Amino acid sequence: MSSSSSPRTSDGERTKKVAIVGGGLVGALNACFFAKRGFQVELYEARKDVRTAKDVRGRSINLALSYRGRQALKAIGMEDQVVSKGIPMRGRMIHSLAGKKSSISYGTSNQYILSVDRANLNRTLLFAASQYPNVMLNFEEKLQQYNADNGILTFMRPDGSTHEVSHDLVVGCDGAFSTTRKQFMRQTRFDYSHVYVPHGYMELTIPPKNGDFAMEPNFLHIWPRNTFMMIALPNMDTSFTCTLFMPFEEFEKLTTGDEVILFFKKYFPDSIPLLGVEALKQDYFRLPAQAMISVKCSSYNIGCKSMLMGDAAHAVVPFYGQGMNAGFEDCIVFDELMDQFDNDLSQCLPAFSRLRVPDCHAIADLAMYNYVEMRKHVNSRWFIFRKFVDNILHFCLPRTIVPLYTMVTFTRIRYHEVIQRSKWQSTIINTVLFVMGSSATVIGTALIFKHFPKQLNIQLRNWNFNLK
Amino acid sequence: MSSSSSPRTSDGERTKKVAIVGGGLVGALNACFFAKRGFQVELYEARKDVRTAKDVRGRSINLALSYRGRQALKAIGMEDQVVSKGIPMRGRMIHSLAGKKSSISYGTSNQYILSVDRANLNRTLLFAASQYPNVMLNFEEKLQQYNADNGILTFMRPDGSTHEVSHDLVVGCDGAFSTTRKQFMRQTRFDYSHVYVPHGYMELTIPPKNGDFAMEPNFLHIWPRNTFMMIALPNMDTSFTCTLFMPFEEFEKLTTGDEVILFFKKYFPDSIPLLGVEALKQDYFRLPAQAMISVKCSSYNIGCKSMLMGDAAHAVVPFYGQGMNAGFEDCIVFDELMDQFDNDLSQCLPAFSRLRVPDCHAIADLAMYNYVEMRKHVNSRWFIFRKFVDNILHFCLPRTIVPLYTMVTFTRIRYHEVIQRSKWQSTIINTVLFVMGSSATVIGTALIFKHFPKQLNIQLRNWNFNLK
Repeated sequence: MSSSSSPRTSDGERTKKVAIVGGGLVGALNACFFAKRGFQVELYEARKDVRTAKDVRGRSINLALSYRGRQALKAIGMEDQVVSKGIPMRGRMIHSLAGKKSSISYGTSNQYILSVDRANLNRTLLFAASQYPNVMLNFEEKLQQYNADNGILTFMRPDGSTHEVSHDLVVGCDGAFSTTRKQFMRQTRFDYSHVYVPHGYMELTIPPKNGDFAMEPNFLHIWPRNTFMMIALPNMDTSFTCTLFMPFEEFEKLTTGDEVILFFKKYFPDSIPLLGVEALKQDYFRLPAQAMISVKCSSYNIGCKSMLMGDAAHAVVPFYGQGMNAGFEDCIVFDELMDQFDNDLSQCLPAFSRLRVPDCHAIADLAMYNYVEMRKHVNSRWFIFRKFVDNILHFCLPRTIVPLYTMVTFTRIRYHEVIQRSKWQSTIINTVLFVMGSSATVIGTALIFKHFPKQLNIQLRNWNFNLK
Repeated sequence: MSSSSSPRTSDGERTKKVAIVGGGLVGALNACFFAKRGFQVELYEARKDVRTAKDVRGRSINLALSYRGRQALKAIGMEDQVVSKGIPMRGRMIHSLAGKKSSISYGTSNQYILSVDRANLNRTLLFAASQYPNVMLNFEEKLQQYNADNGILTFMRPDGSTHEVSHDLVVGCDGAFSTTRKQFMRQTRFDYSHVYVPHGYMELTIPPKNGDFAMEPNFLHIWPRNTFMMIALPNMDTSFTCTLFMPFEEFEKLTTGDEVILFFKKYFPDSIPLLGVEALKQDYFRLPAQAMISVKCSSYNIGCKSMLMGDAAHAVVPFYGQGMNAGFEDCIVFDELMDQFDNDLSQCLPAFSRLRVPDCHAIADLAMYNYVEMRKHVNSRWFIFRKFVDNILHFCLPRTIVPLYTMVTFTRIRYHEVIQRSKWQSTIINTVLFVMGSSATVIGTALIFKHFPKQLNIQLRNWNFNLK
């Protein structure tokens, strides 16, 4: 992979041109990948340049970067720079209703996820892309239409003027509500689904306390409350960003500042001094709760000229912290296919769909599964016990038994294989626990009978008597 | 329900206006329902008037009308007229590879489905709608855009001119690729999915033989071949319309007339004399195989002014013969709600979604399930045995055990309840069969032991010996 052997059109006349629609995280990273491979890259972003814009809004503030995302960043030489601006989170810190805190580590001491700032990461990646001479970044160019038949993209500028461009390859990285995908929707036999979960989310801030973090910084804090939950991720400025997940109708029930405080007193009492009463009263009403969507579609390519990556192909709910990581993994998977098929797009694009569709459907399902697990099971004794058993077994049989969370977060095992492996691991573990439990019961009973035969005889007789 | 008490706007100034988008089967039927209730009805259809147009194309030729559809037709006084133009099909006629035919009845002697001609039924319903003085039918008016906020519909005429209209209620009956639904897609928290099945379909014709049906007319003929299948429905002109369902790649493998004949000789040998060699060679290439889509969405209403019905809300694969019936049932369900809520649209529309979404998701799932059953299981001994057991149990316990097919086809039990009932019935039946089977085995074994003790002793000894 080098820019010296740049991918050229079939007649060898010129370097291949790729249009990347969307300059968010996946679009910006992809620009680096394609540039490194020698394509002539044009990136088109509808919003203003996030590197210079004052007001950055809309999406969640921080994200959890894990192994898959880091591997993609590593491939373009950006891993260390990004990691240096993230805060390691080594486990979950569960906040009980009584204010008790208990931690559950994510894995071994060198297994952690990183809390990174979305806007900052976006700026870093755009800057990295802009350093390639063969990348052109275009902002405030909103895709109006894309015709996959003739490859023509129509963009609109803020003054309302439109212009058309055409490329050898169009990569839609334009997010969950992708305009590029509309062209895919017109194709016969393109499957598509989106579902909104009943929960919305709202972001709140825990400011620094005496110039330092107000809680333990190296954890993902969780307040699980069954039907709803709050989480908090640390920021570089020693604040935390809290996200409250709750059914929309619950959000709508709270209409005054006092109601909000009463609600927090009831469910998140330990968070009130951290958030601040007055700030909470205001912040809650700053923006309405935001919706969360899960998008699945298939295939991710039309022929060898159009493809979708990132949220445009597979928006997932945020409960596994894999949205960005899966999008970044798209880029590295495609890059590996380009190596494998020697830059032959006619082979790489269909292969990309074949590989990624089952995996991205799997991570969508896993994220939906964790949507329940995080708010419901994470504080149950059984969950903690199973995590404990999983970790012990992983320690004893590191290659055979790998906990689900570890496979998703700290490996590049394909997501759909993660589900398969997790299922048979669960079967084995549950069988072992059952056999051990049964044996223990039998042995225990035998021992009791041996040592207390007289007492038991009376007990059993009484029991029989009661049953009559 | 009468036109004398016509639904009026809140200020009582004028009769409420309803726009029905789409003049297919469900649109035309709905026009009758709304007209009967006293609305001012405007129906807009993109195509030419099917009552006068020469060339009617696109959708499948005939359909299976069953109880739900008939009940809706009955409510507008159209049942007898439509039934008189249909051909009763009293069961499945299974064609084996060897050409052997065996029939499995759908139920009792008065339980049958009707093969009806789509275009003819559409004409009949449009004619019925046109008889109401408060119905206006508009053809060649293609919906360009619908704005649910201000209720404005923009239509385009064949000359390219557009005009805008607004109504008190807009009902999208514009099919699986509904334009009305696009407005719904813009709503936050509107869930949507569509999936194409890997099979396509192609229609062929078995002409009359000596002026009469070439096969038994009162059956739905099925040639189940596991990965693909053919069916045939009788027409009033004594022909049959065959539909071949097959994975697209299989269709594409046959590129010459001779290959087609070889294929039919291999899999449907008994159909060749019926279809005719030369006709088959030509018909196969007349049109490419058509795709089949299953659409689910939720909700079916936006506030109290916009709703979806029929395929626009829930296109299903055709394997349960319920597409039209479910769409017709939409009309009668809404009509019943209008009675229940005294024409209050603000209550009827949300109630319609609450009732119909789970039911229409259920029929979509059932149709998908039958997609496998029809081509795979229908010719297995277990399937025939279970149908036999189901029918006996239904005869003995007519209210308790109702076969799945009967509930779907010959009742108005809500589709989602059909699935629930079918599950527990299956559990009961399988348990009973298991217990009966086990008892029979035990009793049989005991009897054998009793009557042939000597022989068995030798047998068992040999068996023990062999095992050593």
